[in-house]
Amino acid sequence: MKEKKNVTFSDIANYTHFSKTTISRYFNSPDSLTLENQKIISDALVELGYKENKVAKILANGKTEFIGIIIPDLYHHFYSEMLNQILSTYDTFHYKFLVFVGNKNEETERRYIQELLAYKIEGMIILSHTISSKELAGLSIPIVAIEREDEHICSVNTDNYMGGYQAAALLARHKCDVLVHINSDTSEKTPAYGRIQGFSAFCRENRQKRHIILKKFGHSYETALEQLQTIPDELDRLFPKQKKGIFISNDTHANVFLNLLIRKYGALPDDYLLVGFDDSPISREAVLSISTVGQQIDKLAYEAVDLLVGQMNERKKRRPVLLKEPVHKIIPPILYRRETTEIHAARSGAARE
Amino acid sequence: MKEKKNVTFSDIANYTHFSKTTISRYFNSPDSLTLENQKIISDALVELGYKENKVAKILANGKTEFIGIIIPDLYHHFYSEMLNQILSTYDTFHYKFLVFVGNKNEETERRYIQELLAYKIEGMIILSHTISSKELAGLSIPIVAIEREDEHICSVNTDNYMGGYQAAALLARHKCDVLVHINSDTSEKTPAYGRIQGFSAFCRENRQKRHIILKKFGHSYETALEQLQTIPDELDRLFPKQKKGIFISNDTHANVFLNLLIRKYGALPDDYLLVGFDDSPISREAVLSISTVGQQIDKLAYEAVDLLVGQMNERKKRRPVLLKEPVHKIIPPILYRRETTEIHAARSGAARE
Repeated sequence: MKEKKNVTFSDIANYTHFSKTTISRYFNSPDSLTLENQKIISDALVELGYKENKVAKILANGKTEFIGIIIPDLYHHFYSEMLNQILSTYDTFHYKFLVFVGNKNEETERRYIQELLAYKIEGMIILSHTISSKELAGLSIPIVAIEREDEHICSVNTDNYMGGYQAAALLARHKCDVLVHINSDTSEKTPAYGRIQGFSAFCRENRQKRHIILKKFGHSYETALEQLQTIPDELDRLFPKQKKGIFISNDTHANVFLNLLIRKYGALPDDYLLVGFDDSPISREAVLSISTVGQQIDKLAYEAVDLLVGQMNERKKRRPVLLKEPVHKIIPPILYRRETTEIHAARSGAARE
Repeated sequence: MKEKKNVTFSDIANYTHFSKTTISRYFNSPDSLTLENQKIISDALVELGYKENKVAKILANGKTEFIGIIIPDLYHHFYSEMLNQILSTYDTFHYKFLVFVGNKNEETERRYIQELLAYKIEGMIILSHTISSKELAGLSIPIVAIEREDEHICSVNTDNYMGGYQAAALLARHKCDVLVHINSDTSEKTPAYGRIQGFSAFCRENRQKRHIILKKFGHSYETALEQLQTIPDELDRLFPKQKKGIFISNDTHANVFLNLLIRKYGALPDDYLLVGFDDSPISREAVLSISTVGQQIDKLAYEAVDLLVGQMNERKKRRPVLLKEPVHKIIPPILYRRETTEIHAARSGAARE
């Protein structure tokens, strides 16, 4: 493996008998040259085997075409699918992504951000929760948050309130005696808090008995299991012989909870109905397909990058008009009715065919 | 949000009364200045609010600290966990990652690689299968492959042969009448082909009846389900009343297959034993925990980055000694015995408690 020497502006100048300034103009404002001279230089590039050096170009025009991403984990299917969808926008926008994973602590995350800024990223998409939007707003680049506290920065979120409301309404339609919501101990400032509010609002408006369980689930299967595994016994004790409609804040945990019930009872009992959140792959792959409030992950990702690119482009104008207030885009959720809310379809019945 | 003007070398030179050349030397070979002068300049940087510009630094010393990654998808838990582990090596090696997802076609992938090269990545980790290792070896940067065809490039792989052998041995120990292996239609050149070879070798050596099913599973749940859902009926027809030991090539598919069996029979029947591959989270989260040949994903990721960094550092030496032959590191698998190979533990029995 022998390395080829890089072709420099001097080499191109020597070859074409133009000055280095002319070569530089070719790369930075080609229209300032005649078409004929552009052709001579572009032919020379092929002849010399010139390889584009974006790093050099960046120094000339300041555009790195980099977007930084900080995502809390890739364990939750919501996050890995979100990262997949964000990276896939390359085909549309041609921005490249520098990715950090971690939701560890403020210091680590500040170091990540300093690294990203040192590489002159043009914008950042942030899903981790560690640093306040107030601090982020102080950074001098466009930032878009997805599903995290976003008071002072732009964001794209699912309509979580509507999602919680829809989940409760679906469970109530099946005449549950009590509606139970299981969620993380969510800050009122994060969009996901809307799930608790929407759920509670439906119950209040419809005088439906409700019970809310908030726990710290962590970022792995083991920590989530530890918190979830005591809940079936707890619910059986609190609500014996009552029909329980359970709304769980994400499909990953809904799947763990479904499996706990099936392991306890051999099948999903008729007095348990289950709705998750996200429509991540696991909701379809579970032993019974899980009804879920679907987040349109592809749309969230696209809108986030689109909103970011808009601001990045604005800053490249001679007189950029910066946003006076952060923009918050809301994407509606889609309710998927599947087997965990259908008493007569699969579960014990059809599961045994 | 007002943008601060960048502090330039001229600003620092004016402030400190050093020449711009001296300032440049401070950044590129600080030891050529006295400690006293280094201190004067570093104090000035704080005073002026200088922000490190790695892009400028790159042009000076040619080190971008970028590694490119091309990964086929983030749907399979093996890949999302692998990406997570690779990105986590930042804490050790301080390299930054430019990530592309896709296993689409040669042209798209070549474009990804051209993009990465244009940004002067120092090395690349490749998991996608589209481009041959011969073509990749022609690129003038260090490359490490993980679990893909690797004849002409360095790689880190699991000992797939041993994994297949161990899976078959575990199933045979439980006195299965027939051992069945379900896998993709894998090329003999990919490391994962070793799983088929190891499985077959064990069966041959131990005169064990075997049956191999190869299908195209695609990169999503829907395509995998379509292929997997006919298999239980097929096996019941081919091997009625025989004890079937099934080895499936990854945990994601093993989970789908387990759920198909449970939906068909209401529980995992006593004449079905199941072993997956990877030890990805789903193998623990499934309704019955799935026995699996564990890939040490953290080790694979660490060794891949370590091998790459070694080569990248070599190239920074004045007289680099490049590898004559590609290095192939092999990481042993770890067998996890869980509920899908324990007849008396969970399944129908304990599942009903």
